[in-house]
Amino acid sequence: MTDIAMIEAAAGRLAGEARRTPLLSSPFLDEIAGRRLLIKPECLQHTGSFKFRGAWSAISALAPEVRAKGVIAFSSGNHAQGVAMAARRHGVAAVIIMPADAPKMKIDNTRALGAEVVLYDRANEDRDALGAKLSADRGLTLIKPFDDPLVIAGQGTAGLEIAEQAAEIGVTGAEVLVPCGGGGLTSGIALALAAKAPAMRVHPCEPEGFDDVTRSLQSGRIERNARLSGSLCDAIITPQPGEITFPILNRLCAPGLAVTEDEALRAMALAFTRLKIVIEPGGAVALAAALFHGDRIEGDTAIAVASGGNVDPEVFRLALDTL
Amino acid sequence: MTDIAMIEAAAGRLAGEARRTPLLSSPFLDEIAGRRLLIKPECLQHTGSFKFRGAWSAISALAPEVRAKGVIAFSSGNHAQGVAMAARRHGVAAVIIMPADAPKMKIDNTRALGAEVVLYDRANEDRDALGAKLSADRGLTLIKPFDDPLVIAGQGTAGLEIAEQAAEIGVTGAEVLVPCGGGGLTSGIALALAAKAPAMRVHPCEPEGFDDVTRSLQSGRIERNARLSGSLCDAIITPQPGEITFPILNRLCAPGLAVTEDEALRAMALAFTRLKIVIEPGGAVALAAALFHGDRIEGDTAIAVASGGNVDPEVFRLALDTL
Repeated sequence: MTDIAMIEAAAGRLAGEARRTPLLSSPFLDEIAGRRLLIKPECLQHTGSFKFRGAWSAISALAPEVRAKGVIAFSSGNHAQGVAMAARRHGVAAVIIMPADAPKMKIDNTRALGAEVVLYDRANEDRDALGAKLSADRGLTLIKPFDDPLVIAGQGTAGLEIAEQAAEIGVTGAEVLVPCGGGGLTSGIALALAAKAPAMRVHPCEPEGFDDVTRSLQSGRIERNARLSGSLCDAIITPQPGEITFPILNRLCAPGLAVTEDEALRAMALAFTRLKIVIEPGGAVALAAALFHGDRIEGDTAIAVASGGNVDPEVFRLALDTL
Repeated sequence: MTDIAMIEAAAGRLAGEARRTPLLSSPFLDEIAGRRLLIKPECLQHTGSFKFRGAWSAISALAPEVRAKGVIAFSSGNHAQGVAMAARRHGVAAVIIMPADAPKMKIDNTRALGAEVVLYDRANEDRDALGAKLSADRGLTLIKPFDDPLVIAGQGTAGLEIAEQAAEIGVTGAEVLVPCGGGGLTSGIALALAAKAPAMRVHPCEPEGFDDVTRSLQSGRIERNARLSGSLCDAIITPQPGEITFPILNRLCAPGLAVTEDEALRAMALAFTRLKIVIEPGGAVALAAALFHGDRIEGDTAIAVASGGNVDPEVFRLALDTL
């Protein structure tokens, strides 16, 4: 189980490797939010999302002779790029299994980061069987996207930074809003803050219609999403919270918050105008909750994590259209 | 005259006030540039540009009884916002004189930062006479945009950070590319690096057709631009290098580099895709020089300053169109 010692150990392994992203703010956003608002821009992390932290944490913790055989991951998105770069910087092979219909740019980017991309046919091939065979044949270690204690520990290092950076400017209590898919980032941050900034409360943030975590926190057991596609917030759409992440979320988190796609796009536009950062829709849901649903949280300070920025120009234009 | 002691003193006054912007990088940009490329994103500074550093440096150095009477500046752009925020955070009045035909958004933003905006008619009013009368009547102190030792010292704090952050990752020698208008930022960085990282060489970067600094460095005396409008890079268009900044540039800088508007737009697009930051055209000329004119510089490492991000959505769309 991930605990604060594991997160601090991950921070030690990540030192000099992950970027320490700054805390940003704007008086214009404070005014919209109705309180002091700080933004942790993980879009500025290597490969454009927080995923590099968890991938590095997991890969760096492998025994050298295990790591040398390489790693494997299933992902068409941010996790793929995080694993690819973390593997390359360790000098080991990464195999990324992606659906053949994944966007070409994502396939190209993952390959350009040095990974071997294996495509499969969603309709006729069993992804898990393909991965199991590759792992067995080549001795590859699977790096899961969220349901792994070492991955959670890596994502939790963002929480350590939030606690330290907020304390530097005199903030010890705050509502901390985190975009939540499988819950790796949210549970890691919640664990870090419970130890280092216990007056902060973490709220998972999701798109409306894909609020499995919010509903699971309400019912106290794992609930599934009815749909798994059809959202611009693709980076944070998962079937359900993880088996390992959910108990942490359930123990530590305050109620979830859901926002509309239009609110996510408007938050992206305000981040463009006021913070000069690029956020993808899924990475903007926490900022959107802070800006447009301030009535659902308490206190005079909120901290929103902007978890990723891997957005196509076409979608970014939709955000600019809201200005 | 600005020296390293003044820059370090400015850094002391800016501690906890200016953001320490990170150094960013991307393997994709390294490949285009043909060398290791580090980016200093001053677009993430308060008010979206480095100008806050110089404004704070100058205002914080005023005697309290002088500062209490307030400050005044001429600007329709980034300097206006930097002075407005620095004055507000000191609790003193700021008067900003702007042409009546300045973009409404810039006027609104400057007012929203607490400044009193005084508009004048470019055709029929004498800006300097108006400013002199306001200063005399109310005892306001003029904060110049670049030709002031304290402003140069403030901008130079970005150079101190570059030296420290590069050394942390083992970089002591590099070609440092800086967007250059009047030369406040470029001369400040050049002074800081001459003292703290003497193996680094600073190149001023400008838009083609507005390369007064590049030509002045070639001739050894101050040359003027033939035109003062008609560039997307409006933030760095000035008539000529400053009386105070030019001798510093002439003593310390390597040759200037000029880029086309199209190159600046393409650099903005690559910063969107690979760095997840928003840069304005004038703020992108150094990155453009590093990416598209690598043959004009030497060495295995370049550092490009992205000096500002205050760009309208319409212009940003032009950049996205280049992808």
